[in-house]
Amino acid sequence: MATVAVAGVSGYAGQETLDRVLAHPALELYALGSDSLAGQPAQQLDPRLGRNGWSRIPRFITNEAALSCGADVTFVCLPHEEAAQLAPPARGVVVDLSGAHRFADREVYPEWYGFEHPRPGDLASWSYGLPELTPPAGRLIANPGCYATAALLALAPLAGEIEPGVVVDAMSGMTGAGRSLAESSHAGVVLENVRPYRVGEHQHAPEIAAQLGFPVTFVPHLLPVRRGLLATCFVRSLGADLRELLEDHYATSHVVTVLAEGVVPELARVQQTDGAEIGVFEDRLTGGTIVICALDNLGKGAAGQAVQNVNLLFGLDETTGLRLSGVLV
Amino acid sequence: MATVAVAGVSGYAGQETLDRVLAHPALELYALGSDSLAGQPAQQLDPRLGRNGWSRIPRFITNEAALSCGADVTFVCLPHEEAAQLAPPARGVVVDLSGAHRFADREVYPEWYGFEHPRPGDLASWSYGLPELTPPAGRLIANPGCYATAALLALAPLAGEIEPGVVVDAMSGMTGAGRSLAESSHAGVVLENVRPYRVGEHQHAPEIAAQLGFPVTFVPHLLPVRRGLLATCFVRSLGADLRELLEDHYATSHVVTVLAEGVVPELARVQQTDGAEIGVFEDRLTGGTIVICALDNLGKGAAGQAVQNVNLLFGLDETTGLRLSGVLV
Amino acid sequence: MATVAVAGVSGYAGQETLDRVLAHPALELYALGSDSLAGQPAQQLDPRLGRNGWSRIPRFITNEAALSCGADVTFVCLPHEEAAQLAPPARGVVVDLSGAHRFADREVYPEWYGFEHPRPGDLASWSYGLPELTPPAGRLIANPGCYATAALLALAPLAGEIEPGVVVDAMSGMTGAGRSLAESSHAGVVLENVRPYRVGEHQHAPEIAAQLGFPVTFVPHLLPVRRGLLATCFVRSLGADLRELLEDHYATSHVVTVLAEGVVPELARVQQTDGAEIGVFEDRLTGGTIVICALDNLGKGAAGQAVQNVNLLFGLDETTGLRLSGVLV
Amino acid sequence: MATVAVAGVSGYAGQETLDRVLAHPALELYALGSDSLAGQPAQQLDPRLGRNGWSRIPRFITNEAALSCGADVTFVCLPHEEAAQLAPPARGVVVDLSGAHRFADREVYPEWYGFEHPRPGDLASWSYGLPELTPPAGRLIANPGCYATAALLALAPLAGEIEPGVVVDAMSGMTGAGRSLAESSHAGVVLENVRPYRVGEHQHAPEIAAQLGFPVTFVPHLLPVRRGLLATCFVRSLGADLRELLEDHYATSHVVTVLAEGVVPELARVQQTDGAEIGVFEDRLTGGTIVICALDNLGKGAAGQAVQNVNLLFGLDETTGLRLSGVLV
Repeated sequence: MATVAVAGVSGYAGQETLDRVLAHPALELYALGSDSLAGQPAQQLDPRLGRNGWSRIPRFITNEAALSCGADVTFVCLPHEEAAQLAPPARGVVVDLSGAHRFADREVYPEWYGFEHPRPGDLASWSYGLPELTPPAGRLIANPGCYATAALLALAPLAGEIEPGVVVDAMSGMTGAGRSLAESSHAGVVLENVRPYRVGEHQHAPEIAAQLGFPVTFVPHLLPVRRGLLATCFVRSLGADLRELLEDHYATSHVVTVLAEGVVPELARVQQTDGAEIGVFEDRLTGGTIVICALDNLGKGAAGQAVQNVNLLFGLDETTGLRLSGVLV
Repeated sequence: MATVAVAGVSGYAGQETLDRVLAHPALELYALGSDSLAGQPAQQLDPRLGRNGWSRIPRFITNEAALSCGADVTFVCLPHEEAAQLAPPARGVVVDLSGAHRFADREVYPEWYGFEHPRPGDLASWSYGLPELTPPAGRLIANPGCYATAALLALAPLAGEIEPGVVVDAMSGMTGAGRSLAESSHAGVVLENVRPYRVGEHQHAPEIAAQLGFPVTFVPHLLPVRRGLLATCFVRSLGADLRELLEDHYATSHVVTVLAEGVVPELARVQQTDGAEIGVFEDRLTGGTIVICALDNLGKGAAGQAVQNVNLLFGLDETTGLRLSGVLV
Repeated sequence: MATVAVAGVSGYAGQETLDRVLAHPALELYALGSDSLAGQPAQQLDPRLGRNGWSRIPRFITNEAALSCGADVTFVCLPHEEAAQLAPPARGVVVDLSGAHRFADREVYPEWYGFEHPRPGDLASWSYGLPELTPPAGRLIANPGCYATAALLALAPLAGEIEPGVVVDAMSGMTGAGRSLAESSHAGVVLENVRPYRVGEHQHAPEIAAQLGFPVTFVPHLLPVRRGLLATCFVRSLGADLRELLEDHYATSHVVTVLAEGVVPELARVQQTDGAEIGVFEDRLTGGTIVICALDNLGKGAAGQAVQNVNLLFGLDETTGLRLSGVLV
Repeated sequence: MATVAVAGVSGYAGQETLDRVLAHPALELYALGSDSLAGQPAQQLDPRLGRNGWSRIPRFITNEAALSCGADVTFVCLPHEEAAQLAPPARGVVVDLSGAHRFADREVYPEWYGFEHPRPGDLASWSYGLPELTPPAGRLIANPGCYATAALLALAPLAGEIEPGVVVDAMSGMTGAGRSLAESSHAGVVLENVRPYRVGEHQHAPEIAAQLGFPVTFVPHLLPVRRGLLATCFVRSLGADLRELLEDHYATSHVVTVLAEGVVPELARVQQTDGAEIGVFEDRLTGGTIVICALDNLGKGAAGQAVQNVNLLFGLDETTGLRLSGVLV
């Protein structure tokens, strides 16, 4: 059993990570960090923590304490800037679910995240862990963004085989916008509404571009649903059969499924799971290709992928403890 | 007062048209056609019909009877194939809200609508009435599709000034999918879900292309909201200032608003209205331009536009009887 | 034309009131009060204010200025405690949409509203204006609460004919919870969720009881919809035909409709309207009666009723400027 | 390992049952019955069925074949009347999730279900299995209805201690209304809407009454959410402390939780789980008590409870294979 600390456990990504750790046969919860909950009983967040002899973690501790507790695995579920400020734990595997360590280039931070990176010298030590494309390496893993995961799963296997000028139009459930209070996340604004946001300037655009090696135009929209994300990608083949490229790439994956011809990805089938679905379609009018990827922003787009990365680093079956369902209503 | 007949009044577009006719100061309801309701009291659909001395229309009649009743204005709110089969009324203005008369080219029908046009000789008699772009002319008006209206409002003023390879990614509330029962419109499928449909093969793609004079790649998605439609369009300028082109085109319009820089179109502000909003954004990564148009699929996307067309043909103020609100919750 | 001031125009009730005033043939907007928007151009909230020669109100003013501007009608759309603190305008009709003046008994405020009433001596000067039950009298009108309106429309005509022990179980769209930011109105909490709140201690319980003359048990729930409210009331007749009592009471109303047997009230038919619908049902198992009232919390439950009260005080047709639709999708 | 057959696997309850069987350590899937899917590959419904060596069930069979295949456990997930017509399997445990065997009294069927029971002589052989109240006994188990489960969990421990005149006002997500196509489940009707249905005549009313031994007034509403159910129950104590009675009754349960004072049950915390939550509140105005129970209509309200019943009959830990989460977004 590997011991686990979670920092920032009270946010959506933190809670989802905690939920997977509790269900994971090879991970043992060891410390729960939350600055807002520090000192309070852990059971308050999750009643299971009060049962079953979890005497080791009776209470929340601070995030700093969680990061320095010496756990074998640390999941960092903090806001971008806060995660960037923290010195990484001296030992063990660290998976950062924020965007604080996804770029080797420090210049990205002031331009797209709105802050100078406080520890730019650390950036080179982190690897970008997207298991199906860039499997985790080393002990410091930057977990990909939710939109970036969907776009990269759809596009990376096609790199070199498509024309420039790729468009990614995406939409996400509201948990993708986090838990803090803002007018834009007030239910009176969100219900029966859809709106685009950070159009042409969302920080996942350079993340997608950095991994692909070429730029894309990316626009996200917020949906009146709780969870789930869809990225609709528009490409033109230079000649190769793009469906075949994708089917080959994911032929043995238990996490990413290329759907049969004519079957559309949709939120319902991936919500509450850690898998992703990809659909490939031809545009009758222009001969272009449309590749659509659906996933759960909190599953494959966050906590599920974080656990998948840990599984790979520990030599476990990639899907251990993941939610990969069949039938779901 | 011009007399009005509505055929197909029991569908969404029919009901919305009826609602606007009842509130219109220069239109007088004369006949209500519905094959499923024929013979039943009109009041059943709308209690106002039983009040205020509407003695002229105590009951629904058949669609055929409504089309031949000699009204000054006939709104045809029937399914595509049914509308194509009917001989147009011999006199008066006719506005067809279906797709049955939107194309001069009969070949579009078997390929995109799934039926041979039964009266191809009639097609040349109809004009495509999108007031801000191709104002209605003659007495037979083909009212544009909802997605097509949004895409054309965003793109037509830019024609000649943008590179080929335009992408239109759109999403619509469920009333856009009509009222008939299908698994895809079952609430258990729709709630908390989003799904793309007819990807690369939706019949509004050739409609948009026919009006623009060049092809676009078009993908629609169905949202878990009742009404409202958003078209996110991706273009590249050949040099002109695209925002300026749009602002100039709609400078005097009371129906279409180009939003100030940084303001995003959203469903909430256009739902229940007959107006449209357009936002223009630069893509920081690629220098491309994103033009987003929001409207109500049943308002500017259907019944509102139909009434706007009639207003223009009768020399009335374009906005008479339309819903053009300011504040809306 | 009567001149109108609206205080607290930036909240949901304020905006809906403004919307109705702009569409009202006998009301002329004169002043727009909002402490948060004071000094900013009025057009920012509603583009119509910049058109059509509304030169009289180029900018928002403070609420205090709006209250003392000498308008013929003042709508007070402020939070309860803020409304209670203000001295009422010296002249003209004042309609207070908050709960600050709904009770003659000052003791209700500390117990149910959480504050001592700052001007208890004023309370006797206000009348409770629920047109179908207690028509407005005098010039200071307390506009009823949304839940209270629904419960009273369903129950008041039955008073004296039913057993004690009445239960009112109600649910409302999120605009009923106001516009301020709170965890309970965060979309991530609200979407795909329903929750009861202030169970057994909501301030509309004593309001209903004060008007009926007997206590009721009242529980409200918040729904994942934007607007609309349903009150399901459980009563037992002492012998009278309760449906008949309700049908008789509303026989001539153009605002409140008693539905035919077997027809259920639902949110969809009353949303965006200022009307209310009542359904009456027999419980097969116990012989009890279930009376269900549906209305729009911002229409008949707030702004629509406020305008209806003004219409009555000015001797206008009760429904002038109201939204009383027939067909609505 | 006990072998399992599921009849009616293509409906919501059938799919949820299948999902739990696949995740259950002591149950082995043996036969999948569905008249509409018979002959088709099982993998079509759930891709897991094609993996992991499920060679025993390559295809769907008919419901009749599933019922007679000799499995150790048979889950019957058929419509009420269809389930009533079938002869129960000759051996093994049978759990009927329909209402076909929930009543000893045959007279209930024509009155509340609309059909004469075709095999009334069988009714006495079935026991009503609600683990916390009437644990399953014998081999033929009638699984309770979703609304009935919630109402009974809230009320049964109070029987004998409350006044007559109990009211149960309930609401459910749309999966509770099943999968067949009807206007009432069309998304255009359901979205942004709530409506009561079968007011005073829903078949769960006599089910609740039969178990309690006294009648209740019961009204259900359909919500625009996919899953989850809330029953708000209104009672008056004869003197006992009702909260204490409930806390004592569920003190050792891992499935049903009585929430601390002031904490409200809500859909979000029980969706996707097989647990239930109960809140107890005092009505400040009348001194009455409000007991609210939340559960997932497809979890504790159907498939979860069915598996819980099987666990008990096989002497397994009651919660084996159930979803009893802590944190859930």
